[in-house]
Amino acid sequence: VTPGPSGEVELAFDSQGLIPVIAQDQETGDVLMLAYADQEAIALTRSTGFAHYYSRSRKKIWKKGEESGNVQKVHEIRVDCDADTVLFRVTQVRAACHTGHRSCFFRTIDGTVTGERVFDPAVVYTNSIE
Amino acid sequence: VTPGPSGEVELAFDSQGLIPVIAQDQETGDVLMLAYADQEAIALTRSTGFAHYYSRSRKKIWKKGEESGNVQKVHEIRVDCDADTVLFRVTQVRAACHTGHRSCFFRTIDGTVTGERVFDPAVVYTNSIE
Repeated sequence: VTPGPSGEVELAFDSQGLIPVIAQDQETGDVLMLAYADQEAIALTRSTGFAHYYSRSRKKIWKKGEESGNVQKVHEIRVDCDADTVLFRVTQVRAACHTGHRSCFFRTIDGTVTGERVFDPAVVYTNSIE
Repeated sequence: VTPGPSGEVELAFDSQGLIPVIAQDQETGDVLMLAYADQEAIALTRSTGFAHYYSRSRKKIWKKGEESGNVQKVHEIRVDCDADTVLFRVTQVRAACHTGHRSCFFRTIDGTVTGERVFDPAVVYTNSIE
């Protein structure tokens, strides 16, 4: 890990130019979602203060909540020891998950639902799903 | 996402047979690390109750803490909406990070150290680093 000129951490993007990003609720500590970012999505997140990611399926940058309004205000960006994973500490408007649950991690591996559902996606997403 | 016979969630491993795993401290909510698991590492985690991962660099399964003793007791395994990311809710012995910090996310992107260092890695790791 090479520190940049101002102590800045140089991120280790993968061979596709992406890095996994964990979004964590700053108030509750809940892990909300995992998505990917490229260099531009990280830069947009820093300049706007709102989480931006790179969609691997749609092959483009998206602002979280651009359609649903469920944006993430980013308070802090942390980097792990290897600089190959990023953590956004966020305030989540309404819910992170397109299923309407507060967190994307709303169930256990045996299928038990543990998370809260806070909206009906049929009402929120009129066109595509985020 | 296809539910298995007993409500079990079928994990969506990537083209290399891996899935990212977030380890979260069950007591504090702190995000400790991100690593990868293959199907066998998930099965070993479930059967032993201790976190196992797959090392992409060493190309083998490892039990977290096998050398350092800093094991992770896994209380719950959660899966996200797309079933392509896993969350281990753990009790972390001592520290998760090989640098001696409690969490691998011990600094911000601008290089400010925010996390606690709880051991000296030179004393703990006599051979390789985990």
